[in-house]
Amino acid sequence: MTQSTTILELTTRGKGLYDFTREVADWLRPQQLQTGLLTVFCRHTSASLLIQENADPTVQIDIKNYFDQIAPDNGPYRHNDEGPDDMPAHLKTALTAVNLSIPIVQGRLALGTWQGIYLFEHRVRPHRRQIALHVIGE
Amino acid sequence: MTQSTTILELTTRGKGLYDFTREVADWLRPQQLQTGLLTVFCRHTSASLLIQENADPTVQIDIKNYFDQIAPDNGPYRHNDEGPDDMPAHLKTALTAVNLSIPIVQGRLALGTWQGIYLFEHRVRPHRRQIALHVIGE
Amino acid sequence: MTQSTTILELTTRGKGLYDFTREVADWLRPQQLQTGLLTVFCRHTSASLLIQENADPTVQIDIKNYFDQIAPDNGPYRHNDEGPDDMPAHLKTALTAVNLSIPIVQGRLALGTWQGIYLFEHRVRPHRRQIALHVIGE
Repeated sequence: MTQSTTILELTTRGKGLYDFTREVADWLRPQQLQTGLLTVFCRHTSASLLIQENADPTVQIDIKNYFDQIAPDNGPYRHNDEGPDDMPAHLKTALTAVNLSIPIVQGRLALGTWQGIYLFEHRVRPHRRQIALHVIGE
Repeated sequence: MTQSTTILELTTRGKGLYDFTREVADWLRPQQLQTGLLTVFCRHTSASLLIQENADPTVQIDIKNYFDQIAPDNGPYRHNDEGPDDMPAHLKTALTAVNLSIPIVQGRLALGTWQGIYLFEHRVRPHRRQIALHVIGE
Repeated sequence: MTQSTTILELTTRGKGLYDFTREVADWLRPQQLQTGLLTVFCRHTSASLLIQENADPTVQIDIKNYFDQIAPDNGPYRHNDEGPDDMPAHLKTALTAVNLSIPIVQGRLALGTWQGIYLFEHRVRPHRRQIALHVIGE
């Protein structure tokens, strides 16, 4: 049984979904694990993770708009140190995921045909985001 | 330390929660692990996973109705290729979970007394859903 | 490769976020793992888990108030065996997380600078809550 870890750095340019399935797959492939478990962990509280449909890009727009609607920028928040998109970013993070766990089965990530791994950026300004990856298997 | 994986197939008949705790337990039991970690992964973007109360079945009805209310079938969505329940299914998936991780402690899944493992189907028409299971332990 | 597990018991005094990062770190530290994976699992359906900002305490108040607003105590619920905060507690649990997975990288939990581990209590009355911890690594 072996393990490995890395920190991916992703650059975002405003609110929305950023597909990084390829970056994850590129890191996993040379490890040639037949069976294992991949963990993806977002080291931030104003960006989060989603597994979502990777076919029709309007899904990603609808998701962004929906979360803007249910956690609007101008809500009755006490915390607004970093502007109107600060507290809604924390709420959207609470409503989605900070970590994902994906089995490796027969040498492949068990993602479904239409599933991609996305960073969901909740802040308006560009950010560099760190994603910790861990895999265990053999 | 050992690992194993499988793919469960579940049949759904419309929106709602489907308890599959027994299918998971039946797969785990013969492996006789004393300590370990179970991962449950849903290979779809229009169905998701929940751990919820397994005592009063009205909880499951309230959950279904609540998510229908906060992500309604006739919202202002761009993506509706597969009908009015298409985009809300993606939103409900984003709001709940694609994967669950449950420790095995002293030979048993660490589920609480009232916790069951549910597939949350978001589409109206019947579907076959694939759930990847992974366990590591000894 | 080694594993260990424990059950933490936390006492809550009404709705809100309870930081237990220190309890988790205190259990991990003597194990001196360089690389690994920590899993945190909440054994309840009316309390849940969040990783959130640990700097400004008003974030925690805003989170509590937001979830009270989107899953109010007096909604049209069928299930209310234990009072008006019963069903909303299940909904808030469905909207947040029952389990967290955090990599251990270079001997440290890969939490970001501003990330703390919180129990999110959804019931009004005091409760004792059990959190299962599992770690695997070396």
